[in-house]
Amino acid sequence: MRTLRVGIIGASGYTGGELLRLLLLHREVEVTLATSRQYAGEYVYRVHSNLRGYTDLQFSDYSVEEITSKCDLVFTSLPHGASMNVIPALMKTGLKIIDLSADFRLKDPADYVKYYGYEHPYPDLLQHFILGIPELNREEIRGSKLTSCPGCMAVTSILALAPVVKNRLVDTEHIVIDAKIGSSGAGVKPTPATHHSERYSVVRIYKPVGHRHTAEIRQELSRIAGAPIPAYMSPHAVNMVRGILCTAQTFPVGMLTVPEVWKAYRSFYAEEPFIRFVRDKRGLYRFPDPKLIAGSNFCDIGFELEEDGKRLVIVSATDNLMKGASGIAVQNMNIMSGFDERAGLEAPGLHPV
Amino acid sequence: MRTLRVGIIGASGYTGGELLRLLLLHREVEVTLATSRQYAGEYVYRVHSNLRGYTDLQFSDYSVEEITSKCDLVFTSLPHGASMNVIPALMKTGLKIIDLSADFRLKDPADYVKYYGYEHPYPDLLQHFILGIPELNREEIRGSKLTSCPGCMAVTSILALAPVVKNRLVDTEHIVIDAKIGSSGAGVKPTPATHHSERYSVVRIYKPVGHRHTAEIRQELSRIAGAPIPAYMSPHAVNMVRGILCTAQTFPVGMLTVPEVWKAYRSFYAEEPFIRFVRDKRGLYRFPDPKLIAGSNFCDIGFELEEDGKRLVIVSATDNLMKGASGIAVQNMNIMSGFDERAGLEAPGLHPV
Amino acid sequence: MRTLRVGIIGASGYTGGELLRLLLLHREVEVTLATSRQYAGEYVYRVHSNLRGYTDLQFSDYSVEEITSKCDLVFTSLPHGASMNVIPALMKTGLKIIDLSADFRLKDPADYVKYYGYEHPYPDLLQHFILGIPELNREEIRGSKLTSCPGCMAVTSILALAPVVKNRLVDTEHIVIDAKIGSSGAGVKPTPATHHSERYSVVRIYKPVGHRHTAEIRQELSRIAGAPIPAYMSPHAVNMVRGILCTAQTFPVGMLTVPEVWKAYRSFYAEEPFIRFVRDKRGLYRFPDPKLIAGSNFCDIGFELEEDGKRLVIVSATDNLMKGASGIAVQNMNIMSGFDERAGLEAPGLHPV
Amino acid sequence: MRTLRVGIIGASGYTGGELLRLLLLHREVEVTLATSRQYAGEYVYRVHSNLRGYTDLQFSDYSVEEITSKCDLVFTSLPHGASMNVIPALMKTGLKIIDLSADFRLKDPADYVKYYGYEHPYPDLLQHFILGIPELNREEIRGSKLTSCPGCMAVTSILALAPVVKNRLVDTEHIVIDAKIGSSGAGVKPTPATHHSERYSVVRIYKPVGHRHTAEIRQELSRIAGAPIPAYMSPHAVNMVRGILCTAQTFPVGMLTVPEVWKAYRSFYAEEPFIRFVRDKRGLYRFPDPKLIAGSNFCDIGFELEEDGKRLVIVSATDNLMKGASGIAVQNMNIMSGFDERAGLEAPGLHPV
Repeated sequence: MRTLRVGIIGASGYTGGELLRLLLLHREVEVTLATSRQYAGEYVYRVHSNLRGYTDLQFSDYSVEEITSKCDLVFTSLPHGASMNVIPALMKTGLKIIDLSADFRLKDPADYVKYYGYEHPYPDLLQHFILGIPELNREEIRGSKLTSCPGCMAVTSILALAPVVKNRLVDTEHIVIDAKIGSSGAGVKPTPATHHSERYSVVRIYKPVGHRHTAEIRQELSRIAGAPIPAYMSPHAVNMVRGILCTAQTFPVGMLTVPEVWKAYRSFYAEEPFIRFVRDKRGLYRFPDPKLIAGSNFCDIGFELEEDGKRLVIVSATDNLMKGASGIAVQNMNIMSGFDERAGLEAPGLHPV
Repeated sequence: MRTLRVGIIGASGYTGGELLRLLLLHREVEVTLATSRQYAGEYVYRVHSNLRGYTDLQFSDYSVEEITSKCDLVFTSLPHGASMNVIPALMKTGLKIIDLSADFRLKDPADYVKYYGYEHPYPDLLQHFILGIPELNREEIRGSKLTSCPGCMAVTSILALAPVVKNRLVDTEHIVIDAKIGSSGAGVKPTPATHHSERYSVVRIYKPVGHRHTAEIRQELSRIAGAPIPAYMSPHAVNMVRGILCTAQTFPVGMLTVPEVWKAYRSFYAEEPFIRFVRDKRGLYRFPDPKLIAGSNFCDIGFELEEDGKRLVIVSATDNLMKGASGIAVQNMNIMSGFDERAGLEAPGLHPV
Repeated sequence: MRTLRVGIIGASGYTGGELLRLLLLHREVEVTLATSRQYAGEYVYRVHSNLRGYTDLQFSDYSVEEITSKCDLVFTSLPHGASMNVIPALMKTGLKIIDLSADFRLKDPADYVKYYGYEHPYPDLLQHFILGIPELNREEIRGSKLTSCPGCMAVTSILALAPVVKNRLVDTEHIVIDAKIGSSGAGVKPTPATHHSERYSVVRIYKPVGHRHTAEIRQELSRIAGAPIPAYMSPHAVNMVRGILCTAQTFPVGMLTVPEVWKAYRSFYAEEPFIRFVRDKRGLYRFPDPKLIAGSNFCDIGFELEEDGKRLVIVSATDNLMKGASGIAVQNMNIMSGFDERAGLEAPGLHPV
Repeated sequence: MRTLRVGIIGASGYTGGELLRLLLLHREVEVTLATSRQYAGEYVYRVHSNLRGYTDLQFSDYSVEEITSKCDLVFTSLPHGASMNVIPALMKTGLKIIDLSADFRLKDPADYVKYYGYEHPYPDLLQHFILGIPELNREEIRGSKLTSCPGCMAVTSILALAPVVKNRLVDTEHIVIDAKIGSSGAGVKPTPATHHSERYSVVRIYKPVGHRHTAEIRQELSRIAGAPIPAYMSPHAVNMVRGILCTAQTFPVGMLTVPEVWKAYRSFYAEEPFIRFVRDKRGLYRFPDPKLIAGSNFCDIGFELEEDGKRLVIVSATDNLMKGASGIAVQNMNIMSGFDERAGLEAPGLHPV
């Protein structure tokens, strides 16, 4: 099979570096281009120093002509608000596009006003993008040229809740998600909030209500349920670099047993290559933990039921740079390109780290 | 005033070390005795090496006679299940006792069966102990010779929720607390779960349902409400040593406004020396964070209300070894002894650390 | 005794915050002023959030008139290069000044060219400042109105090496110090090097040769030895916030025994209130460790001798914000003001943290 | 080519887990057996939970018969002192053996007395093992059936110093190495020293003189130099899980220039697949840092020369579980088996993590 030529638009940040780490070793792919306004002309390995020895590529400036001539598919890993400036032009070239920003995740333009505080300049384009969650939309992704990857806490929450929402097992008016996330989720740009002296040992609830990823969670859960679901999410910054744990607190409707919950999850996810169930009676890691997933593309899911059946705690863990960003982006590329869905994503988590 | 002579029974663990750190500098107190079976005869500063140069005290074996002759008040900071073995005899001596274990926290003996899995051997003694939460029980503590200090996640949760429960502001059927705690909460004994390689960078939900501190939370909130409240709590181990953050998710009954919530908290806690309210519009620490509290006795409390008023997130933070254990124990001692309640507890949090 | 009125010039950074933490509880002192260009008008506790509830002070703009009218003594904790802009004017007012910057640490103006890369604009003033290391210069400090506090890694290295250099126990041509420092040493300003995702888990040798603190180390050790000593130092950023460990590798001249080394240290430091010796045969903390010192003003010192006597490893630990900056500044203030040298510095290290 | 059947003797620890992580994805290899006395009968993924979904293998008890029938090559990753109990019997079977313990690293039986404190029971066997450092002994490894992998801090030090020692660039009487290592180097067994509350934020010099890895460093550097070299090493535990940084302080003999040092390194290591040189003028990672290497098999090496040429600082970094243990073991297996030396070791470091 002919090698797929891929480019990365906005390649100097963490998701760009992670795409490079995955794609430089991907057997079906050649990375032909990586743009960065700030680092144009600089060797990629000087910015992503872990890749020293893996590539002689240099960052280039953004040029539609160059992109068109060199690439079959591009990943846009630009900051939120910047993707929408380049994507209309890129769409015209006919390239396959996988966007990692928030700019094309939401279907309802009103949600951009509500959650992001601005009018989306290209509301008509929103419908062209498939939300790239293969476990929910694999067939649409396969047939599409335009995929938008979900937010990291959004996808971790959605995958945890989809089966119970689909099967109407819980009271959908009282779903709350407590998310804990590592510092890489804040991106590569230093800020007071990411300053080591302030970020180390912290447990910082930084947006108790109204976090933007709530929009995606509600959009997808409502779509699955066929009715509006007002799920709530509160994100916390914790002292790690990679990873997300979402603890979803739910209240069963009627009596619920452990086997019933199992059945909902097993039938919903069946043969999914990147979903693992974790619920052990002994051992250290009886429930999902992002610590076990570093560098891998898994979403681990587990749950526990209150003894009287009145509360169901659902726990999910991902690597925010993998299943939460670049890993799911590569998974989407694999689907869109007819590759083995696991290609380039075979690594288990590094442990201990 | 005559100096209070205090002893610490079970002084080699973290709460024992923290009591020593506080009491060795306490102006009204002389530490006359520190027992440890394991370290009897060893200098205290060899075990609590931060206290090198502060005391020549040596650990001694447990002896009721010696305790009686040397102490006016004792702290029992023995493991759960061990306090109840020594307290009946100590009670007979007439000493003031402040217990830091779980053995006398619950009023209903049935709760020991349900949450701890054993029949309490001295059910009649449970009524003699005042639960040492000064913000709730100051006058009872003042008049008492027997105080039982609350669990660290329990007191952090209770202080967060007491005002809204008291004022019936939220739906008491749907209160869930997501607790995050540092490793010192697990005590001084090494285990696979506290092994650095396994505990570093972790977000481990270790008891999604049925944690023992739930018993205290339910006991106290129910007492305040005058009705049974089935609050739920899920604890998570995170990568820090000291500190607890409790994120309580609640659902208002009827419409609720920010000023109403403020009013409930301000009137409930009025002049409390160790409660601080944190809810800022700007800055890094807009909500409580245990990072700011290390070494201090505060419980910081904040909240946020969903824009449509349908969810109230309450956040509280403590240092688990201070307000969650040894700090509140000293606060109780101050009250029981007629000292300034702040004595020995003046330090603000160390920051950054 | 009349309360000393103190001001802090440049109070919004970490050393400023630490001075406030210490001085707000200091019995002999009233903090009357804290300047910050960036935060003028803002409440101090909004920037130093651990001090919430401890002060109603607001940051003010820098004004010599206001300083003169409100203060008896000022601490200047401005960035390097900024202190020298304000100090000449402040000196004219006759105020006592304790400078925490590097601007007046070196005696030889040529060293500013060599190590800092600029001509010092006020070379004549350098002789007016006493280097504020009480263990070396207590009497000069007592009689002085102008003290310059040493660099954090410098003082930690100097205190470790002074006794063996003084007693000519080691080959002074081959002294190398390997320093490890926490992130707070880099100050409050976010940079790529302090970004949590890049600083966490790091062991970064950031200036293998030529670090500026080398100038102070050489200046003081040469002064003590009465001959030039080319000590070398290599600093490493490690994953903690507070603390410094200096590992000095030295080669004895002639045979050396453990008792001889002990004697050198004990006689040199005799009754020093903030020097502790740590060299235990058992236990976890057999040698100095900054972990045990957080929040305290100690410099812990220990050593080990190669079995054949051919190498002497000397280890010293401090809290870089305390003995390495604000703690030693307060110690100097106490000496200059006739207070108990320990006043405000009584706290032992917080442990575990 | 026929698949190599490999077994892991002592597979439940960290080096065993890392071998499994590498070998389960190695294209030329089938893992047929993993022994563990403690976990016999348990699924491998319950102990190495990051491998959930990668293998259905169960731990088995140690049995020479089973090993012989199932394996072509075995890795022995038993504790020091335990390997020597099984290896004589395994040698008789004719299997290829790669030992990860210290039991066969030293050539001179007297060194076991001096550094390990016991008489080696099989001194005659020591000569049969090749020390598995491919950069020094590739051809001997290729022809051997018995390889002993070096200590993690030893190999990191040796690779840093070999070129300057070989070329007699530095004074060999004054070589000191300051090593910093993550907690995984202490193995999987919880101890007070690895308890998170005591290990977090620590900089602990745990063996200032006489560390066992010194024996290997001296053995190999002396062999390279053709004369005894008394290199010194002091190890420090720092707050990370994976990785080693060695900072070697050396003193050039005669004048030395940067190009001369470069030449020594480039000619010594020429085309080595797992040696990278890191010495940049700008950027965050101008020198080697273990943070960039997590999960990879590199030894990164850099240096800096004092301006006056009187000191040469050499810095090397590895992942202690990879190049310091399981990675180099797989590299040795590849050489011994005629595989591509990089097979199974292609991954770059995970970053940020």
